[in-house]
Amino acid sequence: MKVNGCEYRTIWLAEDGWTVEIIDQTKLPHVFESCRLETVEAAAAAIRDMQVRGAPLIGATAAYGIALAMRRDASDGSIAQAHDLLLAARPTAVNLSWALTEMSDLLTPLQPDARSAAAYKRAAEICDEDVEMCRAIGEHGAALIEDLARARSGGGPVNILTHCNAGWLATVDWGTALAPIYVAQERGVDLHVWVDETRPRNQGASLTAWELASHGVAHTLIVDNAGGHLMQHGMVDLCITGSDRTTAEGDVCNKIGTYLKALAAHDCGVPFHVALPFSTIDWSIGNGLRDIPIEQRDEREVLEISGRDATGVEHSVRIAPSSSPAANYAFDVTPARLVSGLITERGRCAASRQGLLELYPERR
Amino acid sequence: MKVNGCEYRTIWLAEDGWTVEIIDQTKLPHVFESCRLETVEAAAAAIRDMQVRGAPLIGATAAYGIALAMRRDASDGSIAQAHDLLLAARPTAVNLSWALTEMSDLLTPLQPDARSAAAYKRAAEICDEDVEMCRAIGEHGAALIEDLARARSGGGPVNILTHCNAGWLATVDWGTALAPIYVAQERGVDLHVWVDETRPRNQGASLTAWELASHGVAHTLIVDNAGGHLMQHGMVDLCITGSDRTTAEGDVCNKIGTYLKALAAHDCGVPFHVALPFSTIDWSIGNGLRDIPIEQRDEREVLEISGRDATGVEHSVRIAPSSSPAANYAFDVTPARLVSGLITERGRCAASRQGLLELYPERR
Repeated sequence: MKVNGCEYRTIWLAEDGWTVEIIDQTKLPHVFESCRLETVEAAAAAIRDMQVRGAPLIGATAAYGIALAMRRDASDGSIAQAHDLLLAARPTAVNLSWALTEMSDLLTPLQPDARSAAAYKRAAEICDEDVEMCRAIGEHGAALIEDLARARSGGGPVNILTHCNAGWLATVDWGTALAPIYVAQERGVDLHVWVDETRPRNQGASLTAWELASHGVAHTLIVDNAGGHLMQHGMVDLCITGSDRTTAEGDVCNKIGTYLKALAAHDCGVPFHVALPFSTIDWSIGNGLRDIPIEQRDEREVLEISGRDATGVEHSVRIAPSSSPAANYAFDVTPARLVSGLITERGRCAASRQGLLELYPERR
Repeated sequence: MKVNGCEYRTIWLAEDGWTVEIIDQTKLPHVFESCRLETVEAAAAAIRDMQVRGAPLIGATAAYGIALAMRRDASDGSIAQAHDLLLAARPTAVNLSWALTEMSDLLTPLQPDARSAAAYKRAAEICDEDVEMCRAIGEHGAALIEDLARARSGGGPVNILTHCNAGWLATVDWGTALAPIYVAQERGVDLHVWVDETRPRNQGASLTAWELASHGVAHTLIVDNAGGHLMQHGMVDLCITGSDRTTAEGDVCNKIGTYLKALAAHDCGVPFHVALPFSTIDWSIGNGLRDIPIEQRDEREVLEISGRDATGVEHSVRIAPSSSPAANYAFDVTPARLVSGLITERGRCAASRQGLLELYPERR
């Protein structure tokens, strides 16, 4: 999507034809800067230090990490070593292990001297496939927004609320939850996005707000507490969030707080949709509330907040008394009964086993 | 309540018998410091700059502000001038105008040389009355917590979730929502409090956490997004919040985000109670969602956060891109249907007109 009027992806090949460039997301929203990855070690560090984040982008970075390793040393040992190094960078990221298996399976049967070119080619394909998939999610979701725009009697923009960042920064381009918004705006729909701050880690304030501002989408930042009030007063026409893991019955595990917004949407009659690529569907699990373990992260993410002071200097500040402990649950589960519909690369469906099987009949 | 093992109120007369001392709440949670008010102008500034906050404490400070004015100049003109100065400090604070009218009505008929003593006496009474009222709320609410403690089969603490700060810092002592917790702990109930951070302004992280830590109540800070997850997993036995304004039908207007917690409590079968003194009941309004206007505050409260860095220096940092606007709704309305019960100084009742009239039959 656009930054300062130029089209960007989150990862791309530099003009030298082999160095990999990424947007350093740890510097957002205050500084937009790309950095160059020249080794598999640098790719692993970028994943580990969250310069790149979001399952699809982590997968793409890992694929290019293997390509960088092959360029230096295309032996069998190098494949295995690069695989293990990258996998250890974010062990729980879904697409990471998928992308690494994909690359190993492709490269191992090849002659060493063919491996580097094949790796670069496949990494580029993985990126393009992700862009295509997100674009498809965007088109299916945009139809929903267009319907709402047509149904509005009074005019004014369609107001969409989103939680966390499931935008192009989490993928190679377009995003998942934000893809329908970008496509609808491209089609001329008048829209406005309410951006949940998304404590802790503030992905809404730092990433979603930055994406939308950079691409020129009208938006307003709100605290996570505000969405219910907005929905009570008819100021939200649609909620769209992403999903970190979706069960076969349509339960959605996503950033903590998603459940609260789904409850408010349900109470106020606001449609609540979840955008997701098929890779987040866990066909082995039905009841998300019972069967998805929720990761607990460092309490400092709750106790400390980073930002820039008036002179542009970054600080991390503690907001609580020194003797107060914090708990930091990273995700919650929104039961399917609160989800109006799912938006995938194949189309829209009900948040239910039957709905998902209609889109993915091969899983029957 | 206790700070470093000593009993404090939020406002008290210094040992000289006329200077008024307050806890400077703008310095919490990092610095505990009292400051002395020697003039009515200083009292007005303390209210305006939020060194004191919370309706009951603002009322008490205003009463002492009048007393300070009378000590210097007990003329009719001085009463009027002090009244207007203090009223302008926080024009929308409910108890402020009540306390000022109370003081004017008392002092105006008196001879000037009797006014100073009468003003100090009445200000002290207003403080004592508030303490007594909050203590009564605490006792009625503690019974609820004791019932839950008895009903627990597995042992372990009663887990209570609260939002914002309706603690002793908002009153003269005990608080409203936190009073039942302090009384229950005094009675030996094993309890633990989940403290919502409460964005924006972070009253949970800065004030509620500090109060509980200082008094020795077990607690854990969480982001506002987390409460739903905790309730889904049986980790909350009871929610108690305060109320800024309660309608005659039991709708509750409180800090933004209260509605979301009430929805989660309702969805998960967790009792949701609201503690309030009679002064927050607005008998002229039935439907809070329709009839209570919601204040919008400065967007900087959303865009900027203050805290201390690792070296102890305070910074205010911006967390969003410079081009992103924010909306800042201060309160939301929780419909009575989501409120399990109200706790007032007269006892507990249903959140309904009938329930309130049973406690306040003089309003029939």
